[in-house]
Amino acid sequence: MNTQKHVIKMGLLGLGTVGTGVLQLVQNNRVDLMGKTGVEFRFTKALVRDALKERPGVEQFKKEGLEITTNPSHIVDDPDIDIVVEVLGGIPTAKSCITKALQNGKYVVTANKDLLAQHGQELFALAKRQERSIHYEASVGGGIPLISPLKNCLVANRIQSLLGIVNGTTNYILTQMTLEEKDFALALAEAQAQGFAEQEPSSDLDGRDAAFKLTILASLAFSSIVDVQEVYTESIREISVRDIMYAKQLGFVLKVLAIGEETPQGLVLRVHPTLIPEDHPLAAVHNEFNALFVTGDAVGEVMFYGRGAGSLPTASAVVADIIEVVRNIKYQVKSGSIETTYKAKPVIPIKEQKSRFYLRLKAIDRSGVFGSVATALGNEGVSLDLIIQNQREAGVAEIVLVTHTTLEERFYAALENIQKLGSIRNVSNVIRVLERG
Amino acid sequence: MNTQKHVIKMGLLGLGTVGTGVLQLVQNNRVDLMGKTGVEFRFTKALVRDALKERPGVEQFKKEGLEITTNPSHIVDDPDIDIVVEVLGGIPTAKSCITKALQNGKYVVTANKDLLAQHGQELFALAKRQERSIHYEASVGGGIPLISPLKNCLVANRIQSLLGIVNGTTNYILTQMTLEEKDFALALAEAQAQGFAEQEPSSDLDGRDAAFKLTILASLAFSSIVDVQEVYTESIREISVRDIMYAKQLGFVLKVLAIGEETPQGLVLRVHPTLIPEDHPLAAVHNEFNALFVTGDAVGEVMFYGRGAGSLPTASAVVADIIEVVRNIKYQVKSGSIETTYKAKPVIPIKEQKSRFYLRLKAIDRSGVFGSVATALGNEGVSLDLIIQNQREAGVAEIVLVTHTTLEERFYAALENIQKLGSIRNVSNVIRVLERG
Repeated sequence: MNTQKHVIKMGLLGLGTVGTGVLQLVQNNRVDLMGKTGVEFRFTKALVRDALKERPGVEQFKKEGLEITTNPSHIVDDPDIDIVVEVLGGIPTAKSCITKALQNGKYVVTANKDLLAQHGQELFALAKRQERSIHYEASVGGGIPLISPLKNCLVANRIQSLLGIVNGTTNYILTQMTLEEKDFALALAEAQAQGFAEQEPSSDLDGRDAAFKLTILASLAFSSIVDVQEVYTESIREISVRDIMYAKQLGFVLKVLAIGEETPQGLVLRVHPTLIPEDHPLAAVHNEFNALFVTGDAVGEVMFYGRGAGSLPTASAVVADIIEVVRNIKYQVKSGSIETTYKAKPVIPIKEQKSRFYLRLKAIDRSGVFGSVATALGNEGVSLDLIIQNQREAGVAEIVLVTHTTLEERFYAALENIQKLGSIRNVSNVIRVLERG
Repeated sequence: MNTQKHVIKMGLLGLGTVGTGVLQLVQNNRVDLMGKTGVEFRFTKALVRDALKERPGVEQFKKEGLEITTNPSHIVDDPDIDIVVEVLGGIPTAKSCITKALQNGKYVVTANKDLLAQHGQELFALAKRQERSIHYEASVGGGIPLISPLKNCLVANRIQSLLGIVNGTTNYILTQMTLEEKDFALALAEAQAQGFAEQEPSSDLDGRDAAFKLTILASLAFSSIVDVQEVYTESIREISVRDIMYAKQLGFVLKVLAIGEETPQGLVLRVHPTLIPEDHPLAAVHNEFNALFVTGDAVGEVMFYGRGAGSLPTASAVVADIIEVVRNIKYQVKSGSIETTYKAKPVIPIKEQKSRFYLRLKAIDRSGVFGSVATALGNEGVSLDLIIQNQREAGVAEIVLVTHTTLEERFYAALENIQKLGSIRNVSNVIRVLERG
């Protein structure tokens, strides 16, 4: 294959929001991008579900020769096509298309986090056998460079931890709850109205979307096969404005963090609402923005910040991957990235992990109540860092406390005993608190 | 050159703080890095000025065969060496070594911002003729990935602007002035005592260091030859805690920003103290940390954050570059990056640029004074956004105001007229204010 004499032809699987953005970015900036690569490349075919649907933005490209098809085989089996770009989303069709494309010796660029988190190892292994590569910068964090920095720029580091705000929906909702003191239901409804949350938002709200992304990032960062089932997740549905306000009083901001750590005992992998110090760089990541905070043994702390979704930001990452493939083809690098074949490192069960905890509870307002709570914690070796006590209504005190770092199971054992105390009305909420680095 | 059968040998120019860090990172992580590249590589020689100086950290590597030399030719003319890593700093020796290394067909990795900002184009052209490459991730922002994201990850974007906190010394001093209300002289002295400022700190304080870095970043971001002489710079020596406190009252934080923009009229290139909104992500970049905030037409806003200096953070970037070169050698990619041969785009003279301004002045405390100031500004078409008026001492008012965006020369024309007003005692300070994005 002496491609230097030819145009590199690409097939686009999917012409939705991201697909259209990719098409426009590649076709409109073709001259510029040719200057940067020294190679001409373009999309010759695009796969859609409904060929009759009107796509005003695509008309111009059809005139220039872009062929629209509803048959994936027209793309993945086309010997003229060197690169297949998959932006369909979902699993079955995307997986079979990528598999076939690799079997046919094509390079693959994909934005599909669900697919990679669940079937990445199988597809990477196939790519390796085929001496091809799969590029997936767009699968996490939209246009923010994350995959390439982890693979290349930080390659000299042993990555110690990842802290990610990788779900724009929950970050938008929590930001609105924090800045505007809106309750969860209202903030969710507004996020849906503004397109920052889907009508069926459970994957975002309950942490599954972030768990997929953490799976991809942690696998790279810790050179391990990561099973998404082993990521502990917790929803934001129970968070109230009251928690956010108390947290503020204590110097914290509430974020959903995707946390990955490598420890001598194994990997920590979890996604949950987290109180972080208000002067932490992640505390300034508002609304739909995403960020990844990485600690490496040589580089120390680095953070990557930007828009985690959207047509053009995501297209920016897809096209960067395309350019990398184009350069690999130009230089006849068969496999763009030399992946170590990873083994799975053990994941520490959540109850054996360590955390700090915020605890809000209501108690009968009489002397000795707080002491009995502190004693219940102390009996399990859990010590207190911060305390607020508030008379909320006649005869009822609200107690808010933040513990020092403790084993999860010790804290929950103490909590069980606290709930049994006669003076405790209820435990309103428990939220993990980021440990001081 | 069939290097796949051989060890890739490297020469290290300089065994100071960064050089020692690089040596340790490469030699200690060699097995890990071999796994990631599939190639064995190591330093065989290191250049020092004084061969007799004791270097306890280097002894072990000498035992393993590292040869110490005071003669650059032993490295740059050694046919067994494939990669020359330059961490000497300074210009004459570094330049002649890199030139010779390229002429001898070696790849070059350097952390030398002064050299690249002033002689980069010449060296890049030589590398291109030699079908070799120069890698310089460590030259700006220490270990923070900046060069590679601009070259690769954001390649699909037309970069509209760069806002950088790229000088750790001034950021450390301003952070101390802001958080601890220390005056400039004390903050500088403490920074010197703690190693965050040099004994001769003028390159940092007066913006030259940041101008070098902006030159490198802007050249990449805007695909232009950039002459460091055309970067407008302003010192932080005139900043007082009083300015910082007023700024805080107005919702701003003071940072030294390196600003690059591409406009239809040409490039904006400047380094100066800047008031930025307190909720801007750059406002949370404290002390010795650096960050680069990039706006691209597709990706929108992205930010890169981390430690801008230090032995291991800088070594992290140098080693990432080494790995890139190793991969290029393995795949026999002659020139790792296909640089467009840039032309110089015009730079807009500072007086033709636009800014918002913060102005602090002292006036006789009588009615009509503020009106006459506002009139002088209005006569030049400069309108006001924010105002504070303060009785500072008997009979003297301190006036602080922030203008809307205006041409620099219009503002300074107005300022000249303000200084002529009989009621004005003095103009205490003028600071630029970041425009709202």
